[in-house]
Amino acid sequence: MSTAGQVIKCKAAVAWEAGKPLVMEEVEVAPPEAGEVRLKILYTSLCHTDVYFWEAKGQTPLFPRIFGHEAGGIVESVGEGVTHLKPGDHALPVFTGECGECAHCKSEESNMCDLLRINTDRGVMIHDGQTRFSIKGQPIYHFVGTSTFSEYTVVHAGCVAKVNPAAPLDKICVLSCGICTGLGATVNVAKPKPGSSVAIFGLGAVGLAAAEGARISAKKFGVNEFVNPKDHDKPVQQVIAEMTNGGVDRAVECTGSIQAMVSAFECVHDGWGVAVLVGVPNKDDAFKTHPVNFLNERTLKGTFYGNYKPRTDLPSVVEKYMNGELELEKFITHTVPFSEINKAFDYMLKGESIRCIIRMGE
Amino acid sequence: MSTAGQVIKCKAAVAWEAGKPLVMEEVEVAPPEAGEVRLKILYTSLCHTDVYFWEAKGQTPLFPRIFGHEAGGIVESVGEGVTHLKPGDHALPVFTGECGECAHCKSEESNMCDLLRINTDRGVMIHDGQTRFSIKGQPIYHFVGTSTFSEYTVVHAGCVAKVNPAAPLDKICVLSCGICTGLGATVNVAKPKPGSSVAIFGLGAVGLAAAEGARISAKKFGVNEFVNPKDHDKPVQQVIAEMTNGGVDRAVECTGSIQAMVSAFECVHDGWGVAVLVGVPNKDDAFKTHPVNFLNERTLKGTFYGNYKPRTDLPSVVEKYMNGELELEKFITHTVPFSEINKAFDYMLKGESIRCIIRMGE
Repeated sequence: MSTAGQVIKCKAAVAWEAGKPLVMEEVEVAPPEAGEVRLKILYTSLCHTDVYFWEAKGQTPLFPRIFGHEAGGIVESVGEGVTHLKPGDHALPVFTGECGECAHCKSEESNMCDLLRINTDRGVMIHDGQTRFSIKGQPIYHFVGTSTFSEYTVVHAGCVAKVNPAAPLDKICVLSCGICTGLGATVNVAKPKPGSSVAIFGLGAVGLAAAEGARISAKKFGVNEFVNPKDHDKPVQQVIAEMTNGGVDRAVECTGSIQAMVSAFECVHDGWGVAVLVGVPNKDDAFKTHPVNFLNERTLKGTFYGNYKPRTDLPSVVEKYMNGELELEKFITHTVPFSEINKAFDYMLKGESIRCIIRMGE
Repeated sequence: MSTAGQVIKCKAAVAWEAGKPLVMEEVEVAPPEAGEVRLKILYTSLCHTDVYFWEAKGQTPLFPRIFGHEAGGIVESVGEGVTHLKPGDHALPVFTGECGECAHCKSEESNMCDLLRINTDRGVMIHDGQTRFSIKGQPIYHFVGTSTFSEYTVVHAGCVAKVNPAAPLDKICVLSCGICTGLGATVNVAKPKPGSSVAIFGLGAVGLAAAEGARISAKKFGVNEFVNPKDHDKPVQQVIAEMTNGGVDRAVECTGSIQAMVSAFECVHDGWGVAVLVGVPNKDDAFKTHPVNFLNERTLKGTFYGNYKPRTDLPSVVEKYMNGELELEKFITHTVPFSEINKAFDYMLKGESIRCIIRMGE
């Protein structure tokens, strides 16, 4: 029997309070409105951004809320006017989107859609300012338009990429956020040439994905050197410049530390070096450097979601995985059943996991 | 009778002291050593950098010195091992060079030759650490390897571009520095697409040349709007963003003011905006911005001599002038005979001139 047009009751892991374990609840998921899609989530993974907003330190807290934004699922039903997706399609929801109409979507260079750009403060759907989740009539807020810690979720259709149904969702779900963010930072923005040297700052999922991008682009085999800034008295940019005869060709900053951002920029070679900022800084941070570092022909850029346009570009990233060019297995260090989702938080908080896949059926 | 291998006595305008009028002197110009070229200068023009080092405020003063670095001339003789130039060739000396051997010369992206990169502190030739100029045995220092305020000068062959002999040297001499610096900042580095908006900060010779580059690249007709920061209470980047629906596509900073650098960066559109720094800042300036301005997919780059490689690229810039694509006449506001070279300084100090051509024969 079709569930289209009906409220679906299903399990969701609800965050009732900042920093408190998620609670498994039966939630009601309303049908998708115009321009929306309801997805059955099969696999989701935990990203540090979920933890960050769940801890809500220095953030405006918004609870009760369903977190989760890296996931793979199947389209259950679509709202009015949705033409690029139909029930049964395999899909990745993404925390940012592609309306297809704005100046950013029309630009070849930008993926920062005016309509669907990430908004971490918004807990409701754009269409009507309401939530699609409720428990006994109490609205439960959305998170970055995805809320994938639920067996069913409603997402703006512009935030849903249709992907190859042969691709295993328990692997490609990690492309919804962290892996594409790091991979694209190198492949789409830093663009190292074959044989280039690339410095990666930070080796969480994003940094490791940036390194995977370097492996693919620069045709070198993995990570050759590790530098721990704490092992040196000099600024790390100076250590790197000395190791690399004047600086690296490319640097990708994946920590969000302002000092690492400055180091990443100052460790690239004059004449041609490009540094790319990925990590999200604190609100009051200021990037500060001597302008001569720019005049000596260094470039500094930032990126958002690896400059990928979710709907346009994700299918081809999935194909890179399918043809063996891109490895994803190495990022997946843990898996847990949905009923044990709080373990995924523990693994991440202890620094034990890169990505923990959460199996929704279990 | 050939003068090759002989000391040449000729007129030069010598700066004996910081800030004091140049004095016409008879100087002795030694023959070129290995890898050097002796040029007969026919036309030279005054650039603000000459004035800056002549004033020597906050600089290490180096006097007596022969200034001048924008010029056109004819090869008089060449030293041992020089193969790309011969007597009679028309040539532009440049304050930076192209050894052809270093990593920068071999890179497609850089023009910051390790050997011949500008060095404003050096007053001697690289070959032997000596000057080629003297007055009654007293050495007279060189300036940025060019010293074109002399009827004859000796230059490293790597700093000499051979150009089309049909090109008028009294016009193309301005390509030795300021005009290429601004033009290349737009054409080679900012690279606006047809129809793009470009904000130029500063309208001296470099800024006007950056605007000329925008006219050529963006296919618009000249400068459409002027914004005087003093006419507004808001930061000028905000004024520009409001005028341009979120920001300009490209910005080129040609003043050297640190505040203008920050404004130039912050006035480009998120998603695709590129700002290019050209102006030389003060030693203690710090470029400071919120890193989110980068993460929103803005790019900041700097350039040196418009990223032109002097020997490789200048001949084609001369051809752009010859085929009418590039206008140079509009930059030339004054001309004076060599004997009145101090007038060129007066025009610049009063802000009356863009470029003043100095006719060496007169």
